[in-house]
Amino acid sequence: MNLETMKKRLKADAEEVELFLAHCLDEVDMPERLKESMLYSLLAGGKRLRPALCLAVAEMFGGRREDVLPFAAGLEFIHTYSLVHDDLPAMDDDDLRRGKPTNHKVYGEAMAILTGDALLTEAFGLMASCSTALPAERVVQAIAHAAFSVGAVGMVGGQVLDLAHTEARGAARKGSLDDLMEIHARKTGALICTSCVCGALLAGASQNDSEAVAAWAGALGSAFQIADDILDEVSDTATLGKPAGSDAAQGKTTYPALLGIEKSRELARQRADEAIAALAPFTGEHKDFLVALTNYAVERSF
Amino acid sequence: MNLETMKKRLKADAEEVELFLAHCLDEVDMPERLKESMLYSLLAGGKRLRPALCLAVAEMFGGRREDVLPFAAGLEFIHTYSLVHDDLPAMDDDDLRRGKPTNHKVYGEAMAILTGDALLTEAFGLMASCSTALPAERVVQAIAHAAFSVGAVGMVGGQVLDLAHTEARGAARKGSLDDLMEIHARKTGALICTSCVCGALLAGASQNDSEAVAAWAGALGSAFQIADDILDEVSDTATLGKPAGSDAAQGKTTYPALLGIEKSRELARQRADEAIAALAPFTGEHKDFLVALTNYAVERSF
Repeated sequence: MNLETMKKRLKADAEEVELFLAHCLDEVDMPERLKESMLYSLLAGGKRLRPALCLAVAEMFGGRREDVLPFAAGLEFIHTYSLVHDDLPAMDDDDLRRGKPTNHKVYGEAMAILTGDALLTEAFGLMASCSTALPAERVVQAIAHAAFSVGAVGMVGGQVLDLAHTEARGAARKGSLDDLMEIHARKTGALICTSCVCGALLAGASQNDSEAVAAWAGALGSAFQIADDILDEVSDTATLGKPAGSDAAQGKTTYPALLGIEKSRELARQRADEAIAALAPFTGEHKDFLVALTNYAVERSF
Repeated sequence: MNLETMKKRLKADAEEVELFLAHCLDEVDMPERLKESMLYSLLAGGKRLRPALCLAVAEMFGGRREDVLPFAAGLEFIHTYSLVHDDLPAMDDDDLRRGKPTNHKVYGEAMAILTGDALLTEAFGLMASCSTALPAERVVQAIAHAAFSVGAVGMVGGQVLDLAHTEARGAARKGSLDDLMEIHARKTGALICTSCVCGALLAGASQNDSEAVAAWAGALGSAFQIADDILDEVSDTATLGKPAGSDAAQGKTTYPALLGIEKSRELARQRADEAIAALAPFTGEHKDFLVALTNYAVERSF
């Protein structure tokens, strides 16, 4: 699949997901200001990569988009909650996200904390709602996988390590490549990986196939993060929607800081190749889309 | 069932739940400091009322304690996360909880936010893990009920309303009884209610029986909260483990502030009687325990 076709599908996916996000709270009897704040962050843009991955993997195993869509939206709820909480003054203290003021800048700190809490909770509600269309065994298995991946072992644990390492380096040492890879695998890799694996589980993929998906997705997450680090270093603020070079300014260890830009690009390419190799057992248009997406994940930083 | 027997069972339940809580993270590969912080708040005491309710209701419908225990522990994870986040400087800004420094006083604000996030996420993982022993349909139905009850409509929504009303009253008006009842129904009632309903769902209770349980639990939650408000007003700091009268000092509307102590006690008794009436269809030792517990919920404030 060429880049153009892949981008077109990714854009159509994003539009479908956004339409769902924009209306999934319509009938919900909740405080208006909380709804406004949740929607502010849910609809602040973004590639909707995680839902797109979940949908494409499910379709590759014969699943129906409409059956998986609420789960895919739940993954975007989780991604959004993590951004809202990471931006808080007590955490990364960011004022801008995707070119717009961060949630706490608009709604205040208390509301931003609660908005994240609500997004995380409603994510599991959306996921559970899939059992109206899909076998409950699959849904509960996917929920367990997602909870494990974004909890203490995965995403939240990664943020804890990131904060600890950033503080430690502020005082003394430079993080190692191993530290960096562990932090990224947890902080951003785990949610990307579970997005893909849950697509497989929900579509009833075999254990073997789900493991192949996990191998691809693990390498994809790594490639994606290396490319993000490169982009943070080489782009300008307008392109990023946040201050360029902000990772370095905050004393965060990045791939370019450890390896230089060229070596980082090589590593990203290597990871993408590993990822694509793991997709070898599969065929068809959805597999082709996933391959094109994996290439794009690194090539955007070249 | 007399008070003595009920208290003995409640204590035994609490011990069983605490043993589970103390060890459920043993094998989990997560950052040590995060584990320490989660356990600090999980094991800071408390009556373990929500798990006890979930277990007793499940047993009333023929469920086995050991099958439901991980779900019940998940409810305590959720209760604990809500306390950690509510105590944050941006929220209620409390220094003490159950006589001990609050989480953020010990671990810092960033870690307290992440600790709450991890507790909430792991709660859903624990809940989903029940599908190894129970039918997946029941587990996913209970997860959906819990997520709805503690999300934007329920617990988080209640905290949003509470903050908004406290701020508004700081400036001008005194909250009405209706406002107060709505805030409490969401903020504390919804988690108590879902603890009971999930016990019924997990044990495979009929729709009718689950509705009777919901009616009882709704009135119980209300009775419980009125009694808590009274205790906050009449107890001393040593008994409460936090500054007595702190609700009033923070400008929060309470039942005693609106109705006086005597009328508040009457209302609590009335709610408890409504609750007990809803249990009429049921019989046996577990029902007797729930009745005794309902009486105790209000009598402790007399």
